[in-house]
Amino acid sequence: MDLLITNARYAVTSNGSDEILENISIGIKDGKIAYMGTDKPAAAKTYDASGKLIAPGFINSHTHLGMSLLRGWAEGVNLQGFLERVWAAEGAIMDEATCELGTELGALEALLSGTTTTMDMYLNPAATHRGAVRVGLRHIAGPIFFDFPGLDGLQWEQRIERAHQWKAVLAEIGGPYIPTYLMPHSTYTDSPENLTQVAAIAKELGVRIHLHVSETQAENDDVATRYGKTPTEVCRDTGILDVPTIFGHGVHLSDSDMAIAASKGASVGHCPGSNLKLGSGLARFNDLRKSGIKVGLGTDSCSSSNDLDMFSVMRMAAHVVALRQSPADVDLTSIVRAATIEAAHAVGLADRVGSIEIGKEADLIAIDLHAAHLTPVHDVNALLVFAAGRGDVTDVWVAGDQVVANRTSTKIDLTDLIKRVNHRVKALDPLR
Amino acid sequence: MDLLITNARYAVTSNGSDEILENISIGIKDGKIAYMGTDKPAAAKTYDASGKLIAPGFINSHTHLGMSLLRGWAEGVNLQGFLERVWAAEGAIMDEATCELGTELGALEALLSGTTTTMDMYLNPAATHRGAVRVGLRHIAGPIFFDFPGLDGLQWEQRIERAHQWKAVLAEIGGPYIPTYLMPHSTYTDSPENLTQVAAIAKELGVRIHLHVSETQAENDDVATRYGKTPTEVCRDTGILDVPTIFGHGVHLSDSDMAIAASKGASVGHCPGSNLKLGSGLARFNDLRKSGIKVGLGTDSCSSSNDLDMFSVMRMAAHVVALRQSPADVDLTSIVRAATIEAAHAVGLADRVGSIEIGKEADLIAIDLHAAHLTPVHDVNALLVFAAGRGDVTDVWVAGDQVVANRTSTKIDLTDLIKRVNHRVKALDPLR
Ligand SMILES: [Zn+2]
Ligand SMILES: [Zn+2]
Repeated sequence: MDLLITNARYAVTSNGSDEILENISIGIKDGKIAYMGTDKPAAAKTYDASGKLIAPGFINSHTHLGMSLLRGWAEGVNLQGFLERVWAAEGAIMDEATCELGTELGALEALLSGTTTTMDMYLNPAATHRGAVRVGLRHIAGPIFFDFPGLDGLQWEQRIERAHQWKAVLAEIGGPYIPTYLMPHSTYTDSPENLTQVAAIAKELGVRIHLHVSETQAENDDVATRYGKTPTEVCRDTGILDVPTIFGHGVHLSDSDMAIAASKGASVGHCPGSNLKLGSGLARFNDLRKSGIKVGLGTDSCSSSNDLDMFSVMRMAAHVVALRQSPADVDLTSIVRAATIEAAHAVGLADRVGSIEIGKEADLIAIDLHAAHLTPVHDVNALLVFAAGRGDVTDVWVAGDQVVANRTSTKIDLTDLIKRVNHRVKALDPLR
Repeated sequence: MDLLITNARYAVTSNGSDEILENISIGIKDGKIAYMGTDKPAAAKTYDASGKLIAPGFINSHTHLGMSLLRGWAEGVNLQGFLERVWAAEGAIMDEATCELGTELGALEALLSGTTTTMDMYLNPAATHRGAVRVGLRHIAGPIFFDFPGLDGLQWEQRIERAHQWKAVLAEIGGPYIPTYLMPHSTYTDSPENLTQVAAIAKELGVRIHLHVSETQAENDDVATRYGKTPTEVCRDTGILDVPTIFGHGVHLSDSDMAIAASKGASVGHCPGSNLKLGSGLARFNDLRKSGIKVGLGTDSCSSSNDLDMFSVMRMAAHVVALRQSPADVDLTSIVRAATIEAAHAVGLADRVGSIEIGKEADLIAIDLHAAHLTPVHDVNALLVFAAGRGDVTDVWVAGDQVVANRTSTKIDLTDLIKRVNHRVKALDPLR
């Protein structure tokens, strides 16, 4: 073994039977989990996990990491006011270098909070990907598409060109394995004609799609007025759903939308914290799951959720179920799974990550249970969802590479990053 | 000065104009704030707060600390199932020593999370108070009253006797100053006759009252069936509201209840996390405040909110406002105030704590801003409500006494406490 994680008090496996193992050691070889048991096979390195809980790294299935620079920028406003504030700020600072910097910040926050994979949609994906890979994150990015030239100034034809180049760009940047994605923004910012074109390219290239679908009722109304369809129906009719697709949000999916999405194998990145904060509505988490849709959890951007904390998102997901249905309908295992293996299914990585099983890549986190707020442990899933937090994560591995050691990045210097961020956001001062 | 906290990046004062000061030093003498400014008056000790935010210690205005032993004990159940699980566990283990132990645990968690004062209702208050004072918490406890003999086995006459002895008990135990309280459990567990008697004693002794009021619609219905009144009307008609009273929860107060409570000077301890988890409803935070009622935030017990994290409670409070009204109705300053100065008003301590002002007792917390998830700072209140967390609190003072230093209690040993807790809760095994 390259590494033996010894004597973990618990391992939350998120395997097929959601086993929670006790007093367990986990061996890692060539970045993969190669041993689980109570023996101590020889290893080049050991990590003493006594008193700790080992879990699969969380998978944030919908976010916009570059917007970490806008944390707390648009508060106490409705959606329209929110968008105006954010667009003005993005217009002022979001060039390629800034997108990279914001993503570096978001990636670092994600890793330090126990998230090892993010599904990230933002401008200048090559730049954002470089920033995230530098920090060691498994960072799913992809070319973004709008009908209009966005802040990146690209014309439609240039977007198409970038889509064709994307696999090569990813190969050049390197980093932990990710599936290849194209990311049209939504059915209200991309015309059916353009979506049809993106879908055709995705099919041709054999890649996946990530877009916003039914985040708000206003979006549904807008799309219905324009096309007489739901956003999901637009996705179906433009061929988007002919490739594996993940919907960001999916708050306002009807029963019929769910049936369509389920039959096409589409999945949902559910962002309860953002939905609660922006007043977008309460997604039908249990109904989505029952329909057969794979549901991952996500934070959305730091301008709408203010942080990238998947613990807090798990708590909100439970509250959303209790609000829509009842506390007795909250299945904590399903919520932990939505942050781990179901999210891995949702983003197309379930064969590699999302659970602690022999053969999986070692995307793992260690949670220190030696804390007043984690004592006693009557229910491990309840502990993860309702009591543990970002501050309890001490160590993080991505494909066996220890990217966080003792709450500190092994890849980049936090102090230097904070300096660079604070310097860059000074350019926002005139907009305050 | 006994202590000079130097060069804080921010001080969130919660003073009359909610000033947020920058690059500020705070001097403490005889447990009180004696200096605020940019000079460096001579001091016996200094604390370097550069890169940190200093805030008033949070005030948890409704909780049951002893139940920290039951964290995660009753999950995925409706209120009735919840109560059955919890009562069975309490019956099995909650003797005097166990109440003290659970409160020691809760008090430690509270302090490490940035909470310096708690309004705590539980069995065996002398024991719980000893446990909390040992850890250094400003711990408001008081004799509890039910019609029936509770787990403490006390008859009504004994409860009355304890009420008369309570001031002497507090004086004997010592600890940071607290107001004196009597704590009848609720209008559905205490008859109007008994509440009348408690109110008369409270008036006679010049003390305050804490009880549960209108936590659920079921409670309102029950009280309406029995007495043809709302719980607030019962409080009014039994004389409870003739002394300063704080309502735990107050989720289902009508406009008329609010008018009654406001005119009588009653306050509310709002527990959004517990209310969301147990499906109790969405309290009318803004309406309560508009009616003139002082609203503090609280966690409720660890069996219903699973931790004692006031950061998470602030976030939930914002979400509850967005859910009931809209995101534009969320006033972040009002939420920070509800965790600090408004809570101090609500529990009767506003002349001593809840804000950073000359003359106030030094109940202060230091939050380390050197973190990815706290970068950049565009809005300090948004940072506190939506991004900062328990793990960012490094140091805590109660009346100038440093009770937490570098994330560690200066009063008790965490390892030893965890051992004692784990040993005691083994007695719950037969109930699993
Ligand atoms: Zn989004
Ligand atoms: Zn309560």
